[in-house]
Amino acid sequence: MTDTLTASAATDAGPRFAAAKAASRRLATATAGDRDRGLESIAAALLQAEDRVLEANARDLEAARAAGMADGLQDRLRLDQQRVARLADAVLQIASLPDPVGEVLRGRTLPNGLRLSQVRVPFGVVGAIYEARPNVTVDITALALKSGNAVVLRGGTAAQHTNAVLVAVIRDALSAAGLPAEAVQSVDDLGRDGAAQLMRARGFVDVLVPRGSAALIDTVVRESIVPVIETGAGVVHVFLDASADERMATEIVLNAKTQRVGVCNALETLLVHRDAAPRLLPVVADALQQAGVVLHADEAARAVVPDAVPATDEDWATEYGSLDLTVGVVDDLEAAVAHIERFSTHHTESIVTNDLANAERFLAEVDSAVVMVNASPRFSDGGEFGFGAEVGISTQKLHARGPMGLPELTSTKWLVRGDGQTRP
Amino acid sequence: MTDTLTASAATDAGPRFAAAKAASRRLATATAGDRDRGLESIAAALLQAEDRVLEANARDLEAARAAGMADGLQDRLRLDQQRVARLADAVLQIASLPDPVGEVLRGRTLPNGLRLSQVRVPFGVVGAIYEARPNVTVDITALALKSGNAVVLRGGTAAQHTNAVLVAVIRDALSAAGLPAEAVQSVDDLGRDGAAQLMRARGFVDVLVPRGSAALIDTVVRESIVPVIETGAGVVHVFLDASADERMATEIVLNAKTQRVGVCNALETLLVHRDAAPRLLPVVADALQQAGVVLHADEAARAVVPDAVPATDEDWATEYGSLDLTVGVVDDLEAAVAHIERFSTHHTESIVTNDLANAERFLAEVDSAVVMVNASPRFSDGGEFGFGAEVGISTQKLHARGPMGLPELTSTKWLVRGDGQTRP
Repeated sequence: MTDTLTASAATDAGPRFAAAKAASRRLATATAGDRDRGLESIAAALLQAEDRVLEANARDLEAARAAGMADGLQDRLRLDQQRVARLADAVLQIASLPDPVGEVLRGRTLPNGLRLSQVRVPFGVVGAIYEARPNVTVDITALALKSGNAVVLRGGTAAQHTNAVLVAVIRDALSAAGLPAEAVQSVDDLGRDGAAQLMRARGFVDVLVPRGSAALIDTVVRESIVPVIETGAGVVHVFLDASADERMATEIVLNAKTQRVGVCNALETLLVHRDAAPRLLPVVADALQQAGVVLHADEAARAVVPDAVPATDEDWATEYGSLDLTVGVVDDLEAAVAHIERFSTHHTESIVTNDLANAERFLAEVDSAVVMVNASPRFSDGGEFGFGAEVGISTQKLHARGPMGLPELTSTKWLVRGDGQTRP
Repeated sequence: MTDTLTASAATDAGPRFAAAKAASRRLATATAGDRDRGLESIAAALLQAEDRVLEANARDLEAARAAGMADGLQDRLRLDQQRVARLADAVLQIASLPDPVGEVLRGRTLPNGLRLSQVRVPFGVVGAIYEARPNVTVDITALALKSGNAVVLRGGTAAQHTNAVLVAVIRDALSAAGLPAEAVQSVDDLGRDGAAQLMRARGFVDVLVPRGSAALIDTVVRESIVPVIETGAGVVHVFLDASADERMATEIVLNAKTQRVGVCNALETLLVHRDAAPRLLPVVADALQQAGVVLHADEAARAVVPDAVPATDEDWATEYGSLDLTVGVVDDLEAAVAHIERFSTHHTESIVTNDLANAERFLAEVDSAVVMVNASPRFSDGGEFGFGAEVGISTQKLHARGPMGLPELTSTKWLVRGDGQTRP
C-alpha cells in the first residue's frame, strides 16, 4: 500500500528527461548558426516578456518577505527592468562566443592507414540544481544551448514563479526559432522530489552541475548517481610571506576581502609569516577594520592586533560570505601550505612574496584549482580569465578544474575512418 | 552497542588512505626522472621476485580450482615465468612514455598583466577496483606512478595471495629508489569492506577506476561518492549498410567477432540493411558459422539464415564475451542509429558502407565513445591508438571518453603570476 501511495503521490519526471534527451539529439546535429539564432530569439523574447517576468518575480518576492528571507537572498531573487535587460544581454553575449562543438582536438593517421580524430561533442543533457537566483536559470540555459546541450533545471523553490515564466518564454522562443522546446525542461514544480529524480536520472542526464551553498553541493555530490561537477565553495587563503611588500599586501588583502562580499573567490583566511607579522599585520588589520571587516584571530595574531575576536576551531574552515576574516600566524611557507592543505576547499589561494623560490614552491605545492602569486584571488573567475562566460568554478579534479567556460560543457568523441582495416 | 560492534569488527582503512594522500604530495613534486627510476626499480624487483610471485599465484590457483572457477577466469588469474617477464616489460614500457605532468595546456597574458597558465598535475590518489587479474595490479600501479599519482588497490579476492606479494615487491622497490612506499596501498585484506571504504574515501581518493564486469562497474558507479571513471562494458555494433562491399563486410565482421573473444571491443550485435540482407547475410553468416560463431537472429535475418537461433529480447543488450552474436535486419541507417541508441553501451560502433553521406551521418549521429567507418571495432584500444599504454576505455562523457592514456590520469591547475594586481 505504501508503495502505491508513494508512486501515485509523486509525479514521474522520466518523460521530461526522455524528452530532453531526444531534443539533445536534434540540438547536437543542428548547426552553430541555428543554435545562435535560437539564443537571439530567447534574448528578444525575454525583453518582450518583461512585464510577465516582473509580475511573477513580485509574487516570489512577496512570499519571500512573508517567510522572512534575509535581505541578501531577497536581492539575489529580485529582478527589475534593468536586470531583465541584463539577462537578455548575457544571452546575446553567450551567442557571440566561439562555438566549442566540432573542434578537432587531436588527430593522426595510424601506420595501418586508419585516420583518427578526436572532436568536441555536446554532453547531451546537462542538469542544474541551484538556489533562488533567476539569473542562473537564464545563464545556464544559454550556456547549455550554445554548447549544443539540452538542459533540465531545478531552481530554488523561492523563485518558482519567476522560473516558470522564464522557462515558458525560453521554450516558446526556441520553438519560434525552429529548435525543439523540449530541450529546456524544469522539475521545479515537483519540489524536493524533482531534485531527487534528477540525481537518479543516469542514462538520461549526462552531467549535473550544482550551484549554490556548500550544503546544497554536498548533498548533490553524495546523492547523485549522475556524474557531478562540484562547483563553488571557496575557503580562500592569502599567505603573506616574510618578504611581502607592505603596500601590495594591504591592497591585495583588502581587495580580496572587501571588493565583493559573498562570492566564492573572496578571501576567508589570511595567513601571515611569523617574521612579517609585526611589520605587516598592524597595517593590514587597520585597513581591513576601517573597511568594516571583523577579524577572528589566533593568539599570535592577537598579540599584534589585540582588538580582534579570538578565532574558534570552526573559523578556519568557514566560508563566511560576510565581512569576517580569520587571521593566523604561521612559522613559514611549509606551515602555510600545510594549513591550506588541511582547511582549504582547494578553490583559490594566493601568496604575496618577493622571494622567487617561495613563489615557485607555493605554485607547485598548493593543490588548489587556481594558485596565484601577488594577485587578488578575486581574479579567479571565468570572465576575468577571458572565457566570455562562466559555468561555475569547479573544485574537483575530474573533467574540469577552476573556472569553467563553454568547452567544459562538452565531451569528446573519437572518429575513425578506414577502408576495410582488420586487426591482425 | 551495534555501532561499537560494527566499528570494532571492521578495520579502518582511513590511515592507509591518509598515507597514500601524504605520499601523493611527495610524488607530485618528484621529478619525472625520479619516478622513472622508481618504475625501473619495480621492473627489476618483479623479475627477482619471480619465485615468490609464482608460489603465491599457485596458492590462489589451487583455491580457484577447488572453488570451481571457470577455465577462462583461471587463465586470467594464472601467472607463469613468461607472464611475470611480461609484467616487468610493461612497467619498463610505461616508464619510457612521455611524462604527462607539467605540460602547459593553455596560457595567456591578460590585459591587466596577469600571466595565466594551465598545467597538467597528477590527480593525487587514484583508486582501482578490479577482478582477479594480477596483471591489472602491476599495470594500474605503474600507470598511476608514471603520472605522479599514489594508488589504492582493491583486486579480486581470488588473487589475494598473488596481489599481496606483488604489492610488497612494488613497495620495497619504491623505497629502494628513494620514493615513498606508502604511495602504493592495498585494501584487499579487508574483503568487501575494503571496496566499500574505498568508495567512501572522498577527500582522500581523487578518482576511482573500476575495471571488470558490467556488474562490478555498475556497483561502483551507484555506490561511490568518490568521482568515478566508468570503463569497459561494450555491447559493440557493426552496421552493414546497403552499399557495403561483400568482402570488406565479411572481413570486418569476422575480425570483430573472432579475432579475440571476451574483450570489450569485440562485436556483439550485427545490424544489416534490409536491402543488403539477401546479398550479404548468407556470406557473412557462413564465414561466422565456420569460425564457430552461434548466431542469434531476428525473424528477418532468420529468413536468410534459417539455422540461426531465434534472438530473445535480452540478446540485444547482451555482452556475450563468447562466440555468440546477435543479428538483426533494420530498414535503413536511421533505424540502425535508433537501435544503437537504445541498446548500445556507447563504447564503439562501426558502419561498413560505400555511401559518403551515410558514413558522415553515422559518425555524427551515433553517440558512442568511438565511431568508425569501414574498420574493425577491435581497433578501439589505447595501444592501437598509439597511447603506449591503456588505463581502460571510458564509456562516460565526463573527463575522458574512449581509450584512456596517461594524460587521462591527470588533472590540471591554473597558475596565475602577477605583480600586485587587484580587481577594480
